Amino acid sequence: MSALASVLDHLDNDTDAAIERLFELLRIPSISTDPAFAADCARTADWLVKDLETIGFKAQAHQTAGHPIILAEDHDSAGPHVLFYGHYDVQPVDPLSLWDRDPFDPAVTAREDGTRQICGRGASDDKGQVMTFIEACRAWKRAAGRLPCKVTILLEGEEESGGAHLPGFLDAHKERLSKAGIALVCDTSMWSPDTPAITTSLRGMASEEVIIHAASRDLHSGYYGGAAANPIAILARALGQLHDGEGRVTLEGFYDGVSEPSDQVKEQWQSLDFTAEEFLGEVGLKHPAGETDRSCLELVWSRPTAEINGITGGYTGVGFKTVIPAQASAKVSFRLVGEQDPKAVSKAFRAFINARIPPDCRAEFIEHGGSPAVTMPVEAPPFARARQALSDEWETDAVFVGGGGSIPVVGEFKRKLGLDALLIGFALDDDRIHSPNEKYDLRSFDKGRRSWARVLAALAEA
Amino acid sequence: MSALASVLDHLDNDTDAAIERLFELLRIPSISTDPAFAADCARTADWLVKDLETIGFKAQAHQTAGHPIILAEDHDSAGPHVLFYGHYDVQPVDPLSLWDRDPFDPAVTAREDGTRQICGRGASDDKGQVMTFIEACRAWKRAAGRLPCKVTILLEGEEESGGAHLPGFLDAHKERLSKAGIALVCDTSMWSPDTPAITTSLRGMASEEVIIHAASRDLHSGYYGGAAANPIAILARALGQLHDGEGRVTLEGFYDGVSEPSDQVKEQWQSLDFTAEEFLGEVGLKHPAGETDRSCLELVWSRPTAEINGITGGYTGVGFKTVIPAQASAKVSFRLVGEQDPKAVSKAFRAFINARIPPDCRAEFIEHGGSPAVTMPVEAPPFARARQALSDEWETDAVFVGGGGSIPVVGEFKRKLGLDALLIGFALDDDRIHSPNEKYDLRSFDKGRRSWARVLAALAEA
Repeated sequence: MSALASVLDHLDNDTDAAIERLFELLRIPSISTDPAFAADCARTADWLVKDLETIGFKAQAHQTAGHPIILAEDHDSAGPHVLFYGHYDVQPVDPLSLWDRDPFDPAVTAREDGTRQICGRGASDDKGQVMTFIEACRAWKRAAGRLPCKVTILLEGEEESGGAHLPGFLDAHKERLSKAGIALVCDTSMWSPDTPAITTSLRGMASEEVIIHAASRDLHSGYYGGAAANPIAILARALGQLHDGEGRVTLEGFYDGVSEPSDQVKEQWQSLDFTAEEFLGEVGLKHPAGETDRSCLELVWSRPTAEINGITGGYTGVGFKTVIPAQASAKVSFRLVGEQDPKAVSKAFRAFINARIPPDCRAEFIEHGGSPAVTMPVEAPPFARARQALSDEWETDAVFVGGGGSIPVVGEFKRKLGLDALLIGFALDDDRIHSPNEKYDLRSFDKGRRSWARVLAALAEA
Repeated sequence: MSALASVLDHLDNDTDAAIERLFELLRIPSISTDPAFAADCARTADWLVKDLETIGFKAQAHQTAGHPIILAEDHDSAGPHVLFYGHYDVQPVDPLSLWDRDPFDPAVTAREDGTRQICGRGASDDKGQVMTFIEACRAWKRAAGRLPCKVTILLEGEEESGGAHLPGFLDAHKERLSKAGIALVCDTSMWSPDTPAITTSLRGMASEEVIIHAASRDLHSGYYGGAAANPIAILARALGQLHDGEGRVTLEGFYDGVSEPSDQVKEQWQSLDFTAEEFLGEVGLKHPAGETDRSCLELVWSRPTAEINGITGGYTGVGFKTVIPAQASAKVSFRLVGEQDPKAVSKAFRAFINARIPPDCRAEFIEHGGSPAVTMPVEAPPFARARQALSDEWETDAVFVGGGGSIPVVGEFKRKLGLDALLIGFALDDDRIHSPNEKYDLRSFDKGRRSWARVLAALAEA
């Protein structure tokens, strides 16, 4: 029996224990954006350090001004050096009332079609995905005695909240981290439940919070209505102008640096079995929003966006209150492509808002982090090897796809460490990440662990 | 000593006890718009019934499908019959963090200028004002043995939440209530701290809540952003078009029925010592919003408005969440003047929103009540008598003013009972009604009680 075969065997026999380990991790509510959960983030980091040590990694949770960053190394292999990245923090869980069960009390549940799902916040994004890789490493050590590659594992706790402290950490540990030849990232999706994918481009992001300040206190709309500036109306009017009638973003210079995908890439996209009806139908929609002259796949993979992610102002409780509030605020994010500069986009947004504020009102801005888009060199040998390993496991050709989301660290790996990244993940589009009832298919978890075991073997063949 | 002089004397000697009675009333959190406070509204009604009985009124709290309506009568006088109206419900108190003290733990505090204020939710709107009239009745009974007029007191508990059940109550008790010759309402303001006012016109209102439904669940803006309809953006765009560049409301037919005040009324307004700088400066603003070709006084007294009173959608907590929410909602109210029809305005608003919703989204509407504007016949004798009584108490000429707020019952009194209303109140513009740190000047409470004692005497002279 080959080493890989023993490893795959071991994984198949270790599923129950692997699920129990994942459950332990999922039970800790590591919501990074809310300071109330800081101790839970630290506890999560400690749990991971201990687990990696049991496998044989030298592991440490490095304190930052935010949440800890974990660095773990097992360099005993004679093979090539890979740097695995994942994140242990999760999104908030509100609205809690829409969850079928406690988001931090994970369980495996069965659907009518016979598939089984791991349910809980972080099951897919990204704790479940991270554990597919860690379990593959554990299996290599247990079944084969050694890893096929030198492995460095880097796990951050602020991916869902701007990732402010990772770039500085990469700078500080640059010499150590740049010894790797490629990065491995497990935070993306399958193309379909049966077709694995390597994501070869990611949109970047700029995110801003804007608070419009008007009167010095909340006002009665009877006494002041008509004469006093209404910050909700000012905010709505400005945000309502963020797109033109054709769905294009109206910020000055917004499309600077936006490029079209190569003909080759576009051709591959056209060959994919993708329809807007199916993609949007899944979530109760039919008609693509956004730029009217673009295909749905372009809209989510290769076109930049402006989205209002949150808005609040005035009375929002039950009933009615005739108030003109003192302030109103919104959270706005921009998905970026090509060479778009996040800082330039943030600056243009602030100028856009400020140009729409009456003289005695004021706009306050809070930046929530940004990152440029990235595109991978799909012709490099590791991409073909990993693709083959995935195709072997899933018994179908793995595909190269675009990605609409943003994983800022991938750009940082390229710029700071000179590393390209293999973005391989086993999430599915219906995993409800960032939403109530997040889940990860048990099949994703099982074949994900096996896939990583194969990818590590394939990269070692270099 | 005349009967009136004895009554005024009694009021001056009874201040501490009157304040303690008001405090008891203020301590009950009768927030009518929030179902969680329904029992407190009932308790408030019971407290008032008991208090009115101690004065000698036959009083009863009538149950409705909402909060109780109190009807109390003392018809022993040979004088004319008046119907006093007030409301015992109060506005919500959020944001609670901006209150200097518990809104339902009232106290009298002193300002640096030596003035003293009764602080608490409802101190001014409307519990404090209601008690100025009840205390005046108590003093007439105690000091003179009888009221100078036949008095019916009508107190509702849904003024701040649409007043849905009062019109039906007026219909049901029409014969009894229409025996009065005029209505007295204490829910308005002084012209200035030294100048009392009778409000002779009130704006009407139409209020609507709109909920935009898009996807069947919250979405990740990376996966779906650019292709999925964003309900916040749809809402912002629609509400941003509610006014044109000159501040006019863009609803179709909105200005139907809007008339200009008479030249006489406009002339009196011009003689008032009013400046936009002072009015808006009080709340940290300078520049009148709204229609650019109207004076600030017109904007708040004689022009209709559209105001967004609340908006919410997506993630509004600390930090950032890249979500495209399934829904977003807003509460919008319209102040109406002249013959504007609240139902027509609500209908035009719904059509306006529906015309701006993409095909696979849906707008849901909730009506929160409406009322037309009203204008009083200032030439009728009770207006001159009441004006003289106020001028005597405050030792300065009382003025007739317009009112920007809406007191729907005033229109109902006219339409259902054939009664005009004397709108006399002692609130001040800085009372922070509907806002944190609501207060009622002790001077308003003291001279307000004395004013009603005089007004009752003056109306009895008929």
